[in-house]
Amino acid sequence: MLPEEFRRFGHEVVDWIAGYLQHPERYPVLPKVSPGDVIDALPPQGPENGEPMEQILADFQKLIVPAMTHWNHPGFMAYFANTSPGPGILGEMLAAALNGNGMLWKTSPAVTELEQVTLGWLRDWMGLPSDWFGMIHDTASTSTMHALIAAREAADPDVHSYGGWGTSKNLIVYTSEQSHSSVEKGAIAIGIGQENVRRIPVDAEFRMRPDALEQMLRRDCDESRHPMCVVATVGTTSTTSVDPVPAIADIAKRYGMWLHVDAAYAGSAMICPEFRWAFEGCDRADSLVVNPHKWLFTPMDLSVFYTRRPDVLRRAFSLVPEYLRTDDGSRAANMMDFGVPLGRRFRALKLWFIFRYYGREALADMIRKHVAWAQELAAMIDADPDFERSAPTPFSAVCFRYRGSDEQNALLLERVNASGEVFLSHTVLCGKTVLHLAIGNMATTRAHVMRAWELIRQHADFSS
Amino acid sequence: MLPEEFRRFGHEVVDWIAGYLQHPERYPVLPKVSPGDVIDALPPQGPENGEPMEQILADFQKLIVPAMTHWNHPGFMAYFANTSPGPGILGEMLAAALNGNGMLWKTSPAVTELEQVTLGWLRDWMGLPSDWFGMIHDTASTSTMHALIAAREAADPDVHSYGGWGTSKNLIVYTSEQSHSSVEKGAIAIGIGQENVRRIPVDAEFRMRPDALEQMLRRDCDESRHPMCVVATVGTTSTTSVDPVPAIADIAKRYGMWLHVDAAYAGSAMICPEFRWAFEGCDRADSLVVNPHKWLFTPMDLSVFYTRRPDVLRRAFSLVPEYLRTDDGSRAANMMDFGVPLGRRFRALKLWFIFRYYGREALADMIRKHVAWAQELAAMIDADPDFERSAPTPFSAVCFRYRGSDEQNALLLERVNASGEVFLSHTVLCGKTVLHLAIGNMATTRAHVMRAWELIRQHADFSS
Repeated sequence: MLPEEFRRFGHEVVDWIAGYLQHPERYPVLPKVSPGDVIDALPPQGPENGEPMEQILADFQKLIVPAMTHWNHPGFMAYFANTSPGPGILGEMLAAALNGNGMLWKTSPAVTELEQVTLGWLRDWMGLPSDWFGMIHDTASTSTMHALIAAREAADPDVHSYGGWGTSKNLIVYTSEQSHSSVEKGAIAIGIGQENVRRIPVDAEFRMRPDALEQMLRRDCDESRHPMCVVATVGTTSTTSVDPVPAIADIAKRYGMWLHVDAAYAGSAMICPEFRWAFEGCDRADSLVVNPHKWLFTPMDLSVFYTRRPDVLRRAFSLVPEYLRTDDGSRAANMMDFGVPLGRRFRALKLWFIFRYYGREALADMIRKHVAWAQELAAMIDADPDFERSAPTPFSAVCFRYRGSDEQNALLLERVNASGEVFLSHTVLCGKTVLHLAIGNMATTRAHVMRAWELIRQHADFSS
Repeated sequence: MLPEEFRRFGHEVVDWIAGYLQHPERYPVLPKVSPGDVIDALPPQGPENGEPMEQILADFQKLIVPAMTHWNHPGFMAYFANTSPGPGILGEMLAAALNGNGMLWKTSPAVTELEQVTLGWLRDWMGLPSDWFGMIHDTASTSTMHALIAAREAADPDVHSYGGWGTSKNLIVYTSEQSHSSVEKGAIAIGIGQENVRRIPVDAEFRMRPDALEQMLRRDCDESRHPMCVVATVGTTSTTSVDPVPAIADIAKRYGMWLHVDAAYAGSAMICPEFRWAFEGCDRADSLVVNPHKWLFTPMDLSVFYTRRPDVLRRAFSLVPEYLRTDDGSRAANMMDFGVPLGRRFRALKLWFIFRYYGREALADMIRKHVAWAQELAAMIDADPDFERSAPTPFSAVCFRYRGSDEQNALLLERVNASGEVFLSHTVLCGKTVLHLAIGNMATTRAHVMRAWELIRQHADFSS
């Protein structure tokens, strides 16, 4: 494609995006498609010869856009919402054009160093210790897997050489019943095994019980197993509960375990000093993950992994073949030494654009508003005799249910989501089906939250 | 950022990109920066308040662009070159704007299904069996790690539950001395252990020796170890040698091992029927990785992992918590069930744009030209008494050296790279330092290759 042709279609695409961002409610949040619709609409064989860009863009609008779940829709309140704001898109455009690969410092100094700078800014904004090392991964699942590998390296360096088979230690990972499935998945992936992940019971507010953790640890130690890592969560996936990190940090220290904190969602709120209570004790963690692509208004994908022990991470992952050997001195970080992926695209660019365009205060203010609206909704739910809240609401996610059967709640969810105006998700708490409404998109306003509540109440009519 | 402001800066950025693509040689391939330059040029604290986009874009041009290694430069011939063509950038722009997350079918049907469609096209173009399942990962290192996890699941399902510690099998991975470091790194990551990776000797053309593989296997079996996986390479990193996959497939079958093929680089060339000899036997593999972000003109990142055994992959990775449970029927693939990362950005969009804009024939033709120029250069090296070729040249990478000392070759590399016109890398073959020149960028022409050779000869003057 000649630069002039790129210019022409680039302008067209920018105009399309501007129109799309102008009317984020033009499309229903959840698309009206069935499994296989997109596959069936496309040819089974790829084209032998090129096609005009006009045709491709027309097909994009006709076939792809209507089959998207619109995460940009202000009514997207399922799971945790995300946002792709203008400065983030501009950053991704330039990152795609430069196409740098930061595997080594030498293969793109700016990719490596801007990552260090932006993650340093974020670390300070969140109040984490200033000597922590940060790196970008695609998702929190990958970040947590890296935390587990570092924890394993610290607990038993023999695994690096001889594998799980070669160790005399039955390594155990501890996390709460409410923690994200990525902890178990990571433990399976790295060869710790699902049965060696202890799901610690939670209290009435869905927080890990330190007494139960300690009890489990004692039993494991008595039976000659070896505690490797405890994963605490600040903002769990279902209810955004906050594990008691200070008490967990005490226990981790006593048992010589790695402490990893999953703050994928709520970590972003730490840029507001008033929510910093939730990070109490996190300065004593060995590693922590926060996802700017969740609640810090950054396009997918961008998960940040911090550790105060980069030496362990490096020991776990450094493996330099001759063809990748460089000698650029100690200030030149080679990011490939700290993780599994070798290639690294220029993700820090969008983060830099977003941090600078908005500044900390404006970003914090958006998060504050989301929390305030969630509190307001929580109060309205509490005041409605037909509904009940199912968990505390420390941040911007509200868990609640219609005072009825699980079937009625499932039907309610289906009806509300079918409206196309809003998309909620569900979870199960204390054995009951519960609706989960999380505010997190920059385009969401108080009115959208009120409208969601209106729809929920309207559809909660099971009389017929 | 209001849509109108995005429109304005979007147009500005598109114009900048068009200008950048028009003059890819405006900047030296390797930047003239020292470690720490970018860090020192930026404030240690992030901004409290927002800054105008003009200022951010000005800083991008002033501080970031000159500190990039320009992978777009047609003189980039180090490692394996890559390309970010116009249709790919347009695809990334739209993917960033839509910001879809394909973790579940429901969370973005188009993300899930377009991935299946485009990977089906590519699979057929490469002549792989039509029932293979494909999925996109960030990099080949991640793809290969997933292959090893699937292989482990097939060899010993107990590891899933009880970890390496709980298995009675000492699992072993086999790969050649010339295979990529990601095989070892993956084996370390998943708890197999570095000492349980056998580096099989190669023949004079740097191909795995099946007799040596078999010998090693016999010894391991005699000593009660358990063969888990063999990783063959089609296009090794140093010399692009092709392991004898048919013989390796026979052995894998005999020993009941998973066969993974690393075709990260050379796989792209399989869209040209005349290079298909290199894929002989690959239809018998259990999994295979190819990186369109290497030689198929696709922006970073996009690695494709194929397997004929998606059931094993799914068994290894499926773990569905309540909050991610959906019921959309069997045609709705939930990609989170097949790997570690949960979030999945819309990478297939750029691939679709590229495949359609160019068509197979034009893509194949570019690869053909790259190979032809590499052959031409190889012949010129062979004809020059001061130089010698260090390996066969089956594809577009040429390994060669000045007939002198290792120090002279290292100095030659340094001088050539300092020109700013070209960037080569090095490797070590048979104990000697060797230069590695790989042609792979769409903007590279025959003239650039000839100019590189001219520079190499000019700088190979060690008389003073």
